[in-house]
Amino acid sequence: MRHFISTLDWSREELEKILASASEHKRDRIRPLLVGKTIALVFFNPSLRTRTSFEIGIYQLGGHAVVLEPGKGAWPIEFREGAVMDGDAEEHVEEVARVLSRYCDMIAVRAFPKFQRWEEDRQDSVLGLFARYATVPVLNLETITHPCQELALMLTLRERLGTTDGKKFLLTWTYHPKPLNTAVANSALIIAAKFGFDVTLLCPTPEYTLDARYMDAARSLTESQGRSLTVTHDIATGYEGAHVVYAKSWGALPYFGRWQDEAPIREAHRHFIVDADKMQRTDRALFSHCLPLRRNVKATDEVVSAPYSLVIDEAENRLHVQKALMTTLLSAGKKVAS
Amino acid sequence: MRHFISTLDWSREELEKILASASEHKRDRIRPLLVGKTIALVFFNPSLRTRTSFEIGIYQLGGHAVVLEPGKGAWPIEFREGAVMDGDAEEHVEEVARVLSRYCDMIAVRAFPKFQRWEEDRQDSVLGLFARYATVPVLNLETITHPCQELALMLTLRERLGTTDGKKFLLTWTYHPKPLNTAVANSALIIAAKFGFDVTLLCPTPEYTLDARYMDAARSLTESQGRSLTVTHDIATGYEGAHVVYAKSWGALPYFGRWQDEAPIREAHRHFIVDADKMQRTDRALFSHCLPLRRNVKATDEVVSAPYSLVIDEAENRLHVQKALMTTLLSAGKKVAS
Amino acid sequence: MRHFISTLDWSREELEKILASASEHKRDRIRPLLVGKTIALVFFNPSLRTRTSFEIGIYQLGGHAVVLEPGKGAWPIEFREGAVMDGDAEEHVEEVARVLSRYCDMIAVRAFPKFQRWEEDRQDSVLGLFARYATVPVLNLETITHPCQELALMLTLRERLGTTDGKKFLLTWTYHPKPLNTAVANSALIIAAKFGFDVTLLCPTPEYTLDARYMDAARSLTESQGRSLTVTHDIATGYEGAHVVYAKSWGALPYFGRWQDEAPIREAHRHFIVDADKMQRTDRALFSHCLPLRRNVKATDEVVSAPYSLVIDEAENRLHVQKALMTTLLSAGKKVAS
Repeated sequence: MRHFISTLDWSREELEKILASASEHKRDRIRPLLVGKTIALVFFNPSLRTRTSFEIGIYQLGGHAVVLEPGKGAWPIEFREGAVMDGDAEEHVEEVARVLSRYCDMIAVRAFPKFQRWEEDRQDSVLGLFARYATVPVLNLETITHPCQELALMLTLRERLGTTDGKKFLLTWTYHPKPLNTAVANSALIIAAKFGFDVTLLCPTPEYTLDARYMDAARSLTESQGRSLTVTHDIATGYEGAHVVYAKSWGALPYFGRWQDEAPIREAHRHFIVDADKMQRTDRALFSHCLPLRRNVKATDEVVSAPYSLVIDEAENRLHVQKALMTTLLSAGKKVAS
Repeated sequence: MRHFISTLDWSREELEKILASASEHKRDRIRPLLVGKTIALVFFNPSLRTRTSFEIGIYQLGGHAVVLEPGKGAWPIEFREGAVMDGDAEEHVEEVARVLSRYCDMIAVRAFPKFQRWEEDRQDSVLGLFARYATVPVLNLETITHPCQELALMLTLRERLGTTDGKKFLLTWTYHPKPLNTAVANSALIIAAKFGFDVTLLCPTPEYTLDARYMDAARSLTESQGRSLTVTHDIATGYEGAHVVYAKSWGALPYFGRWQDEAPIREAHRHFIVDADKMQRTDRALFSHCLPLRRNVKATDEVVSAPYSLVIDEAENRLHVQKALMTTLLSAGKKVAS
Repeated sequence: MRHFISTLDWSREELEKILASASEHKRDRIRPLLVGKTIALVFFNPSLRTRTSFEIGIYQLGGHAVVLEPGKGAWPIEFREGAVMDGDAEEHVEEVARVLSRYCDMIAVRAFPKFQRWEEDRQDSVLGLFARYATVPVLNLETITHPCQELALMLTLRERLGTTDGKKFLLTWTYHPKPLNTAVANSALIIAAKFGFDVTLLCPTPEYTLDARYMDAARSLTESQGRSLTVTHDIATGYEGAHVVYAKSWGALPYFGRWQDEAPIREAHRHFIVDADKMQRTDRALFSHCLPLRRNVKATDEVVSAPYSLVIDEAENRLHVQKALMTTLLSAGKKVAS
């Protein structure tokens, strides 16, 4: 049995197989591969695409998804081990994971950081505890990385670019009024590095560099394939010659939990918005962004709606890669529902 | 491909076909006509019947419904075009509609007015923007009209009255502690006019007359079939000789957004409640009301539970007309999920 | 047609048949016994296991569950008969139950007490009114008893103990920071009595004795089978020789609605926690608790995770007993969906 927590745990070859399977699922949407199977989708945070694409993908495979929202329709959950549970939480993740494993064939979890202490959030402990106690595969629906989005991005780039090796992938920070999760940025960095891009990270200041775990992994992945990882704070340098511009906003890690101190830096870099002028510096680059996307804040209307914008295709491909992923995980797993 | 936004866009003949199909669905509930199809039900407001009847109807046809509640479990949405999205909304309806169109075969939307400026609400822009950007059929689950309720009402009346032409349809305003949406009133007016009734609108004062768009359409529809549209503020005149009494409360449009000024008029007309005395003035009329209904406020217990009350039948018929509608829209559409 | 409101309405023989059927469902999870059938799950309170196990069980039988949360996604409901509905409630339970009966083949309801007046809560009127107005079977998802949990408990004990007759069942109150529902305590008392245990109720003071309806029923059920019902406030006496220790916290009924007066008693009995020392007084007892369970408050980590702990098995068995129950109720009912 195998979980899907981070693509760092999966080789490029394994991920290539999942992408090939995703293309088959894209050609043939209705296939009875999960008949009788049930999957719990546990959301601690909002979702539109993730919920819809999983629920529909599971239906198209003959299975059934159950959507759970702890703290709303379901009981609040305790995550500390050994805790004396006399606070708000009514039950422990150990029981939740064990019971859901008795009912379901897979557990998928969305749990964003709490944005108070990065040292704590970077442990990814909610997902890790589900994986520890579950006896069925556990799947990451976005915690501190967003591996389903990675697969969707890479399927979309493959469809447009053919090979990705040796092309230039620009991951650019953009302004957003709130300090967001680094998950998609971490993920974009890793998957681009894993698939042989020369990767450039463009961000306002060194403080916006991503966590060392992901920077180091990206450096190792690019170097082992003879590629490069570059960090720049200069917009012209970042866009120059890019084949892919991937935009995302995130909060600077050194300011974690004291976001009021980060706000002035953030506000001073509204011009990092992706616009047509910047795109003209590229080598006719494709543009993409995981949704949701704030128009005219992260990217202009012109860019988001351009023919080179992949945002809708990437969102659609969530459906297909996730179906490939679920069938892969369940065929590897030992548990059979019937 | 065709949307279902308002029955004003559909001819009586087309609607008659949908009603005939609904009767077939009522006789035979389990038919595999939407196998592999998925439909997004997007609720910006609460629902009991709409959600339940759609979800069950889709299941009975072999398809699958996904229920989305933006701002609760899903991200808040921006509806202004060209907006600089630095407020609360995390994504634009353009992306929502386009992405859902990639996942689903139909998008159904409930979006009540905001009750601040009628000139704005009457544009029905939430639904209109979904229809503009979606590439699959869009269906109205109640915005400023409620066309699914119209079809359910008309199926129910047909079952009881046989022909509707030339019979008297009374739409009566009733008291309710809050100023409600005019959607069901607009809809009742239009569908009764379209199906050949002589239509009477009974309301406390001229200020409770409905929007000119619907009054004019009802006048045109009745006149073209040799029937009449009458507005009265006299209870006796309204009920006299009616074959159908349809009750609904709504807020007076001239007071839109300054409801405290409307409250005294509203409070002075609690006696518009439908009761047995008033029903005795009719020609043994049938009574109905879309649910939810406040007992002993809009109509007395005696009326709601009387043999001539159609409220439960009308609610049941939502199931059947919606199945007819979905199969009609999807057979007209070009998109195939597989 | 028959409802499932309380196991007091069902004989031991009838319940034995349901348990036997549950064992079959446990061996063979995918059986097309409810194809085309739909079941409304109406939740007035949170749920994890109940919602998941019902939704999955219904799917595994080929049917479809609709989850409704009145006051959240659905309209707030009035329960007083004859009420002038000018408050918050938008519709009456009479319409809700009648309409759902037209759409669905069964209605399952979770409605916890309001914790203000026990004399009112003990009428179980929400569930009773659903049963009164529905024309399909109504099923209790926990109100003032929790009969599905009873069946799950008893299936689990049967699996471990074989026969239950003449064994000692200890129901022990435990501390919890809030005064909880007596439902599961009432249920544990009844089902243990019904299945031939010698039953002991251990609680801090006489004020924690359960409602006379359940105490009397348990006394009658035990006596008619030659067994005993014992109430004690002495921990050593309670645990001595027990074969089953079932833990639950609840609020003392004489303090209903004035919980601040109960708090000091509650706080003085934190030592009622189930721990390894207490378990050593038993005859190698099995331990169980309906979930959710606060670890190190109601029972220590050591006990909850011990080999003799049945909490996960009991939770899993919810799935199987509920499938047996639904197929029993629907084969007894007259309504057919198609």
